This record gives sequence, C-alpha cells and structure tokens, in this order.
Amino acid sequence: MAPILLNCMGNDHSEYIQEQVQVKNPYLDTMEEDILYHFSLGTKTHNLPEMFGDIKFVCVGGSANRMKAFAQFMHQELKLTGNPKDLQDICEGTDRYCMYKVGPVLSISHGMGVPSISIMLHELIKLLHHAQCRDVVLFRLGTSGGVGLAPGTVVITDKAVDYSFQPRYEQVVLGKVITRSTELDKGVAKELLQRSSELPNLPTVIGNTMCTHDFYEGQGRLDGALCSFSHEEKLEYLRKAHEAGVRNIEMESTVFAAMSRVCGLRAAVICVALLDRFEGDQITAPHDVLVEYQQRPQVLVSHFIKKRLAQAI
Amino acid sequence: MAPILLNCMGNDHSEYIQEQVQVKNPYLDTMEEDILYHFSLGTKTHNLPEMFGDIKFVCVGGSANRMKAFAQFMHQELKLTGNPKDLQDICEGTDRYCMYKVGPVLSISHGMGVPSISIMLHELIKLLHHAQCRDVVLFRLGTSGGVGLAPGTVVITDKAVDYSFQPRYEQVVLGKVITRSTELDKGVAKELLQRSSELPNLPTVIGNTMCTHDFYEGQGRLDGALCSFSHEEKLEYLRKAHEAGVRNIEMESTVFAAMSRVCGLRAAVICVALLDRFEGDQITAPHDVLVEYQQRPQVLVSHFIKKRLAQAI
Repeated sequence: MAPILLNCMGNDHSEYIQEQVQVKNPYLDTMEEDILYHFSLGTKTHNLPEMFGDIKFVCVGGSANRMKAFAQFMHQELKLTGNPKDLQDICEGTDRYCMYKVGPVLSISHGMGVPSISIMLHELIKLLHHAQCRDVVLFRLGTSGGVGLAPGTVVITDKAVDYSFQPRYEQVVLGKVITRSTELDKGVAKELLQRSSELPNLPTVIGNTMCTHDFYEGQGRLDGALCSFSHEEKLEYLRKAHEAGVRNIEMESTVFAAMSRVCGLRAAVICVALLDRFEGDQITAPHDVLVEYQQRPQVLVSHFIKKRLAQAI
Repeated sequence: MAPILLNCMGNDHSEYIQEQVQVKNPYLDTMEEDILYHFSLGTKTHNLPEMFGDIKFVCVGGSANRMKAFAQFMHQELKLTGNPKDLQDICEGTDRYCMYKVGPVLSISHGMGVPSISIMLHELIKLLHHAQCRDVVLFRLGTSGGVGLAPGTVVITDKAVDYSFQPRYEQVVLGKVITRSTELDKGVAKELLQRSSELPNLPTVIGNTMCTHDFYEGQGRLDGALCSFSHEEKLEYLRKAHEAGVRNIEMESTVFAAMSRVCGLRAAVICVALLDRFEGDQITAPHDVLVEYQQRPQVLVSHFIKKRLAQAI
C-alpha cells in the first residue's frame, strides 16, 4: 500500500494508516536542532538514522527493569550474537526512561500514568521521524487489574476507554480540551490473538481496557489513603465497566492509542491481569507467580515478532 | 496545638491542619495486612513504626538519581556518621520508586506526572500513618519551565493551579469527577522565602505554579510530535498565565497539594526554572549549568531543615 497522507488530527476515524511515521508539527523540520531531552538524545549529537533507521518493532512498558529483561529475552529469541547481559541503555544520560535496541526491536520504559508515557511518545515519534523509520508496529506490554478474569489472563485491547467507558482521550491544548479517538489497530490485535493460540499456558482474550489517572480512588480501590465509597458501590462500578466490555484496567492505554493513531503507527496494548478486581484490591500473589505473569505479554509479543520476521524473509 | 480531627474530604477550606498524618479511609485499619505494592513494603513484612517513626521531613522529586543525590547531600549536611555512598534504597524490591532515609529525612522519587506521584502519595501517606508519624512537613523539589523568569530562579508555589489557572484538582472517583482545593501551607512557603534570602546565589520568588498533564501540547510547546497552534497563540497563552500569577509550569503540583491538604500534611512545592518559556521550548543549557540549577531547591530545603532541627533542640 502506498503511503496515504491524511490530516488525522482531532477526531478522525479513518481506517487508513500511513506507512511512514508522521509527526504532526509543521515547525519540527524547520528547527536547526531537536533535543529529545528526556531521552538524552538529539539530532546534532546523534546520528539517528544510523542508530535507529532499521527499527520495525517498538515495545514499551512501565518498568525499566522489565523492559531491560524484555530486551535481553528478545536478544536470545532472535539468536543475535554477543552476550545479552552486555546490552547498553541508549538513554544512559538520563534516568527518566531506559532504552535498548535489539536488532529491529526497540525496548523502552515509560514510567506510570498518561503524562509519563505521553512525554516518551512525543520523543519516540520524533525519534522515528528523524530516523526515517517505516512500517513500525508499536506495542505496550503492561500489567493491569482484571475485571472478571482469572489472574494471569492476557488482555489484548480492543478499545482503550476512559472512566466513563468511552473510547476517547481528552487532551488540553493551550487551555482548551480537545478529544481524540483511541481505537487501536484491529489487524494487529487479531494477529496477536491468533499467535496466543499457538503458545502453551497463555490464556488470552480481546476486550476493552479502561485507562485511569489514579490507581486507588480512580480504579475503585478500597485500600488507598483516601476512600469515600462502599464495597458495594465499588462492585457496582466494576459491574458497569464489565457490561461495557471492559476486561482490564491500567493507566496508559488511551493516550498511547490516541497518539499512535494520529501519527500513523499501528499499535497494540497487551497487558496481563495480576488479580481479579471483583475479588480484591491488593496484589497478594507470590513474587515468582507475578514474575511469570509479567513475562506472558513478552512471550506473546516475541512470538509475534519472530513470525513477522520469518514471513519477511 | 492538640490534634483537631476534621472531615476534610472534598472542598474543605479550613486552615486547621492536623499534627498527625491522617488517612481518610475507614477500611484501612480493619485490614489484616496492607501491602504498599509500589514501595515493596508491607505492614506484615516490615516494622514500619520502627523503620519510619522518627520521620519529620519528607522530600520528593521526579528523578531517582536526583533524590539519591539529595539523600547523600542531606547526610553530609546533617553530619551523620557513615559513608553517604552506602545509603541503601529502601524500595530496592521494585523499580517504581526509590526511597532513602537520612535521620529524620525521607527522600523519595515519584516519576513524572500526576498519576505517577499520586500512587506514591497514597502509599507514602499510608506508610506515615502506619508508622504513627507526627508533625511531618512534605516538600516537592522539582524542575519546571519558568514564565517570565530568568533560568535558575527558584519558585516557591503559592497556589498550584490547573490549565485554566484555577487552584483546583479534579479527581475521578468511581466514574464521577470531584474537585479538591490545591492551597499549600502559607507558613512553610513564607519560611522558605526567608531562608532563601540567607543563601547566596539563590534567586527565589513566590508565585503560582501551573500543573499540566502533558509536557508538549499541554504546556504550549512548539517542538512536540504534535503541534496545531501558532507561535503567537502560544505566547498569548503564556501571557494569560503570567497575568494570573503563574510563574512556572510543571506536572505534579495540583495532586501533591490536594492530597497533602486532605491528609493534614503541611506541604510546599519548590521548583527551579530551567528556561524561560517566553524565550523558547527546548532545554538547551549546558549539562553542568542544569545540574547546578537542579541543586538549588535541594540547597534551600536542606537549609530549612537544618534551621528547623536547630530550633527544636
């Protein structure tokens, strides 16, 4: 498919996606230098096309340790030469995010919550643009609270929805609230579900993912420093979410979906449920069980990438 | 002053502050165990009163490296025994936050943005409650964009305001939006300003701090992956902010002020301006200059703490 240039700022719902990563900023190419401050990279200090031009898959997740472990795992899975323990953090000049490159795969941490991942996404999209990357697929690999799911179930996001179960992201621009669509790439989601069926011990569903800006009150937890509602009111909210198709709750998916869509990136969100929120609020599973759960999105995305690379040969 | 128990959920504007840290959750003391998941601490696995009962000052900031450097600096300033390089990260079981204890001072990182700091604040307030701490002062030491200020100026926050310059924080609770006040402790702010005048090379002002949920579009930057406004529209927004008393822009102050207030913690926000946003968007100052700027809030808060400790003897 030839690249189709679209003005997809705002509420565009087109199904056409550009092959090239598109910044939506007319000023950017007029700048003499672009400092990607939170990555500690820049267009004058680094040769971004040489460093990143071959990237085809970008995998992001909240925890720096987990995204380092994922990079080392991908290194083994892709049978690359060298010791995976020697992988260097490309963002070592800052502690805001970490970044590892493994062949055509980039693994980046984004911290917790919409603002933290949005800073990373702005700078990632500019990086991919400056590096002239094409045909990039973007994955968020995360943890979440399940809604009516057994702990350990992997959820591939159909629609990322807000606290009122709507597939939208509200962004403030110069003091005005604008709304962006949060629909994700249906083809990638379907392909991921197919891949999950080829793997043992990887219970997987497609469902809506609710994105909140708070882990406690915003997700109806009874165990925060503040709580002004009853157990029954909590359950009622979770029941309404479940009826609206919500199968898990996390804190980054709406802005991830909205920005990917605007900039022509095919994107998917794959999160494991650490607990069933109908059953409780605290994450009490033993450490080794949680570690195995957190590996499930990594195993699935690794399998997807390997299949895609095998098909491309 | 004897502790005064108030129901200060919601929009309470009382000037009375409790001496004891107060969780506002009737369920908490009925729980058999409270796992502070993102700190990797818990009431059954750790003796929180023994570990933290003597804490009087809690200092938080976005960057893990910077809060470790602050802990080492406080260790020297308080002339404690032992090597500051040997300070242990109390949250070493997780990479979500880091935490260091230096005598009566706790130094914690909170990542970037309101959701990230709000998770930390919920668990910090529960920790201080479980540890039965009293008379705690809470500081956020950060970096920010200045609005009509020379780079390097330190801003002590008067009011934390939202994108429309209002001193309020909107929190979603079970799908409903509630509003909380973001007024900070005026006495602590005034005392900090007095302390700044006793230090060389520490230009300091009191002003309003605007808290946004996005670093690029939300703060009117022209250098993000997305930008749909003109240079003149950006300047017009910054001028309106300046007229409303805003002197700097960052990404955590509203929820920090709101939660501190509700839970009876005297709190202050002290951020250095890394640039003047009327002059540009990119952070271009040399690394050593930025490092010195970032030390300024640390030097001021350290001086405040030492004076308070000297007065208490």
